[in-house]
Amino acid sequence: MTKRKKYREGSIRTTSFDVAALAGVSQSAVSRAFKPGASIAPETRDKILDAARKLNYVPNSIASSLTTHRSNIVALILGDLHNPFYTHVLEAFGREMQDRDRQLLVFTVNEDLATDDAIMRLLRYQIDGVILTSAQLSTQMVGMCHNRGIPVVLFNRYIPQSGAFGVRCDNSWGGRQIAEAFLRAGAKTFGMITGDPNGTTSKDRVSGFVERLIENGVPRTAIRSFEGNSTYEGACDAVRRMHADADGLPDAIFGINDTMAMGAMDTLRHHLGLSVPGDVMIAGFDDIPEGARLPYQLTTVRQPIKRMVRATIEHLNLDNPGQPIDLTHDQPIRGHMVWRKTVPGDAPPEV
Amino acid sequence: MTKRKKYREGSIRTTSFDVAALAGVSQSAVSRAFKPGASIAPETRDKILDAARKLNYVPNSIASSLTTHRSNIVALILGDLHNPFYTHVLEAFGREMQDRDRQLLVFTVNEDLATDDAIMRLLRYQIDGVILTSAQLSTQMVGMCHNRGIPVVLFNRYIPQSGAFGVRCDNSWGGRQIAEAFLRAGAKTFGMITGDPNGTTSKDRVSGFVERLIENGVPRTAIRSFEGNSTYEGACDAVRRMHADADGLPDAIFGINDTMAMGAMDTLRHHLGLSVPGDVMIAGFDDIPEGARLPYQLTTVRQPIKRMVRATIEHLNLDNPGQPIDLTHDQPIRGHMVWRKTVPGDAPPEV
Repeated sequence: MTKRKKYREGSIRTTSFDVAALAGVSQSAVSRAFKPGASIAPETRDKILDAARKLNYVPNSIASSLTTHRSNIVALILGDLHNPFYTHVLEAFGREMQDRDRQLLVFTVNEDLATDDAIMRLLRYQIDGVILTSAQLSTQMVGMCHNRGIPVVLFNRYIPQSGAFGVRCDNSWGGRQIAEAFLRAGAKTFGMITGDPNGTTSKDRVSGFVERLIENGVPRTAIRSFEGNSTYEGACDAVRRMHADADGLPDAIFGINDTMAMGAMDTLRHHLGLSVPGDVMIAGFDDIPEGARLPYQLTTVRQPIKRMVRATIEHLNLDNPGQPIDLTHDQPIRGHMVWRKTVPGDAPPEV
Repeated sequence: MTKRKKYREGSIRTTSFDVAALAGVSQSAVSRAFKPGASIAPETRDKILDAARKLNYVPNSIASSLTTHRSNIVALILGDLHNPFYTHVLEAFGREMQDRDRQLLVFTVNEDLATDDAIMRLLRYQIDGVILTSAQLSTQMVGMCHNRGIPVVLFNRYIPQSGAFGVRCDNSWGGRQIAEAFLRAGAKTFGMITGDPNGTTSKDRVSGFVERLIENGVPRTAIRSFEGNSTYEGACDAVRRMHADADGLPDAIFGINDTMAMGAMDTLRHHLGLSVPGDVMIAGFDDIPEGARLPYQLTTVRQPIKRMVRATIEHLNLDNPGQPIDLTHDQPIRGHMVWRKTVPGDAPPEV
């Protein structure tokens, strides 16, 4: 017989009735105290949690999930932890879910494990919803979740025709603001360091940026695009390729996320011995705290993470499962320009 | 009736027998295909997973966890996501657990939610083990996990007399190497920027560092300590306090993690206009990839994350629950010096 088994059989299980007796409340009050979102007076809840702690009582969510079909577990599929933006996203979801007494089952997806496979694994658990931050997802997989009544919300992206709801910042608007900032500062030639070519986030930032430049008469030949793989290292490499290119470095570089903008800055300054913004101006996107540090002082577009996280949770509809969600709210959320030191001059008006 | 309920009642549930029939194998082979660590030929497993995909079949881990007392879920309690070291730790655990077909239930602990509270919440789920990276944990809580047969392993720390196993790098050894490097480079006065004063990690790095300096005749008055709160911002502030102090800046600063060493460098260079290592030499600890970037080139001690993660999983004993663990292996794992540009001169021999 294993030690584990011995422990299980040897312990006398405290029940909710014991806790109710000690706290001087009804058993149903004890249930409510442990149920997320249930109506209960804070003093009563504290009294019950106190009694539960004294008695080592913990309700068994797993057993109750079989009857309620609710586990209070939400799956979060993270695609890219190398970008600090997603660390901040994970932290924000962790905090907001804990406030709602829900837990995050976290999957990190890399090349070895496709998102579809991750969801296949997830479906073995009784989960109340799926939040997805990686770009690839088949419509078949969204269908499998739907068939099980599990809502899927995409974060920081959307997948056209996937049937999954996408919460995102207004990326195209942000791209336009960066273009405007560069134009006001006198830039004539432009480079973009792009991310996942299949991701809507990168595409929308690029299209807003290019659109605004074209509107202002910039010839298409003065706008070049370099793949940066969404990473710091990819951006370092992209700047080296720009520099080696016949056209040389442009006046202004848009890193479509801050991590790439930081890689571009470091390569310009420490590898090529150039000045930012003196020789080349730079802007990023996301407003990660790292970009605000002394060596960077990066001009960027802030993603409204808190509002995006709350919108995601709202669309998971955790308290009213199965209720139809109003899809007319599927609008991008507008962030705002954060003006620092990597583009010369003053903040232009928003366009 | 809710939409969710309708889906559940309306769908015809595929069973493992349907999958067995399509794949041309026994029903027990199907069970084994979905059981982590079970013996099954890879071709057979692939055939079964293929059939399962075609039939939209997913085993219900929650229901089976009630009979097996195993959910294949391991809880990871993360204390400090602001330190990129823990992002890399999360990624490493995610990958290693997925390789073993286990999932991570992730808790982020902040001031609002104590570790004890996080574990109380965790215990509602059928979890197979707890990995803890935050410093505070009561012996009562370790006892509650033990009573339920749930192993608790501390990562990057230990808590004396807690009864929980601690996996860690040899922090004291690392502190000694940094002291030796500074001494060889000619430093006479020393500053330390420390982390959590209750954490064993910070204490051990500091004690190894101070020990080696004292052994070499450095007077205690030439070694000063400043609280940096384990964060980049805390270290920036610590350097400003050192600078404002009557004794002024020391010859060498040891940031007891890389994030703090990076904050110290940025403040010296960009706020005080000094050179690193010309005016002040710097070393860190952890070897996060960010410290290797062009502007930093930080000399540091590498924590052997992969070996530490594997040792942690080994001590969770997931495949043989309840089997006693050999505690004689509770030895710190030695990392190694990573010699870059923030301490002048060549790498000294290890001490």
